[in-house]
Amino acid sequence: MIDINNAIEALDWSKEPEGLYAPIAYTLAAGGKRLRPTLALTASALFGGKEEEVLPAALALEIFHNFTLLHDDVMDRAEVRRGRPTVHVKWDDNTAILSGDQMLIEAYKQLAQVPADKLPTVLRWFNEMATGICEGQQLDVDFEHSAHVAIADYMKMIELKTSVLLANALRTGAYIAGADEAALKALYEYGIHVGLAFQIQDDILDVYGDPKTFGKAIGGDICCNKKTLLLLTAFERADEATKRELDQWLQTTGRDAEKIVAVTAIYDRLGVRQAAEAIMEEHTAVALRQLEQLPQNEAREQLRELAERLAERKS
Amino acid sequence: MIDINNAIEALDWSKEPEGLYAPIAYTLAAGGKRLRPTLALTASALFGGKEEEVLPAALALEIFHNFTLLHDDVMDRAEVRRGRPTVHVKWDDNTAILSGDQMLIEAYKQLAQVPADKLPTVLRWFNEMATGICEGQQLDVDFEHSAHVAIADYMKMIELKTSVLLANALRTGAYIAGADEAALKALYEYGIHVGLAFQIQDDILDVYGDPKTFGKAIGGDICCNKKTLLLLTAFERADEATKRELDQWLQTTGRDAEKIVAVTAIYDRLGVRQAAEAIMEEHTAVALRQLEQLPQNEAREQLRELAERLAERKS
Repeated sequence: MIDINNAIEALDWSKEPEGLYAPIAYTLAAGGKRLRPTLALTASALFGGKEEEVLPAALALEIFHNFTLLHDDVMDRAEVRRGRPTVHVKWDDNTAILSGDQMLIEAYKQLAQVPADKLPTVLRWFNEMATGICEGQQLDVDFEHSAHVAIADYMKMIELKTSVLLANALRTGAYIAGADEAALKALYEYGIHVGLAFQIQDDILDVYGDPKTFGKAIGGDICCNKKTLLLLTAFERADEATKRELDQWLQTTGRDAEKIVAVTAIYDRLGVRQAAEAIMEEHTAVALRQLEQLPQNEAREQLRELAERLAERKS
Repeated sequence: MIDINNAIEALDWSKEPEGLYAPIAYTLAAGGKRLRPTLALTASALFGGKEEEVLPAALALEIFHNFTLLHDDVMDRAEVRRGRPTVHVKWDDNTAILSGDQMLIEAYKQLAQVPADKLPTVLRWFNEMATGICEGQQLDVDFEHSAHVAIADYMKMIELKTSVLLANALRTGAYIAGADEAALKALYEYGIHVGLAFQIQDDILDVYGDPKTFGKAIGGDICCNKKTLLLLTAFERADEATKRELDQWLQTTGRDAEKIVAVTAIYDRLGVRQAAEAIMEEHTAVALRQLEQLPQNEAREQLRELAERLAERKS
């Protein structure tokens, strides 16, 4: 398979004005899992697609993903991304906004290279995906200011923020390779459920991860009152007294270490971790079931391993 | 011709999450000249194109233009646009960033409705145009921090910031209507030179406009040391003593009324207004010459009137 990192490195950003393009080069050079283009290429391989035909779409998805990180970091005032200063810290907010805009346009430039007969559908799907991700980001912001969030609404939000990009990467790669409707649907569903499992595992690791392997501080979500599946499940399961206790901790600031211990103890008491793990495993199982309908080859094996690895990951 | 304002009003933004879509509705409801979609529709009419085939591209161009204003207003910290609070003032910066991103995606959603056989070229042109506008915006920022800007570089910047969008609107409308290469090239050139004349007239009006009709305070560019064609021409024509005088005024803050009078007097002494008017008229003339190659009909007459009106406008 094409080395996706090489393909990304081969993109030329040594253009003028440097102030516009240098932050794009910086962002794309930061690495990351390259999960989305890998999914597109794997889905193409599943149907014997030509790599060079799917590569532009794969690059579009990776550039788009990095664009969302760039603008999210401005909005979240995040200072570090992948161990390096974020663009708005290294340059400034205006640079992050404008270079981010250009990155979104660069994603569409890649997309414009999709074979012409496939372009209308690929472009329409890409737009729907991009819209979903903006809607998910807005819902995430809305939830920060909501007293109560239903678990179903939370699941919808993480589906939009995380799953639709994975699902669309798979569907797009397979479509360009000539897959039929049933296969596209199965791959899309696989992507949705793998994404949900991935995000739930993220919520679990933030509380129960091993600080040595997790890579960031444990309890970050608890400190900032993030409405994760764990917190929402705790509220759902808690009696009135425990709800009051949780509410009190949500209003507590400046006693982070104590707050993490106390909220984790409530989670333990209510069996929140087991409940979240059960939901995550169910989504992984649904994802794996989709694969049964797909051609039995090495690419399918890679998708099976990926779903299992994401659910078992420690970081 | 389709009423472009009606077509824009017919777009439905009553979608969830409201926090994402309400600022888009607000931005598009502010009015404006609707110059870009009008150019696309007029260029289509020039070749007897079907309005419904060009309308999505026309809407894409208008939505894109408004997206650039939305993000520019954040970057410039502008508080008022078309007589109303800007989005980042009425909501906040993050809303302006995210709803702006979604507007850019909405432009591409319109574009995806372009007839499939025309889509690859229209999408490629649109991407080149969007890139040009981001590059122009970055150059504008760079110029703010440059001690000296060459007039040629200034012209390149305003071509990117203003002209390429007008030129591409015309070219796209004509292309969808089936115009030939020579006509597309003539229309593109017309758009480039009309845009340059428009921007130069803007620079002139900012100093020499009638406060009653201009709509904003006279001398704004002088106060903030904006590198306009007038200022750059003044530096080009000035002797050493006058250059020192100009430099001193550039370093003066807090004496705006006096500064406007003094810098305008230098412009008058150096004949800067006449020089700028001559350049503007030359661009208008080049634009009008392009029209000679195009079909002689009502649409062409409208393009002729537009070029003349823009050059003679008082606001």
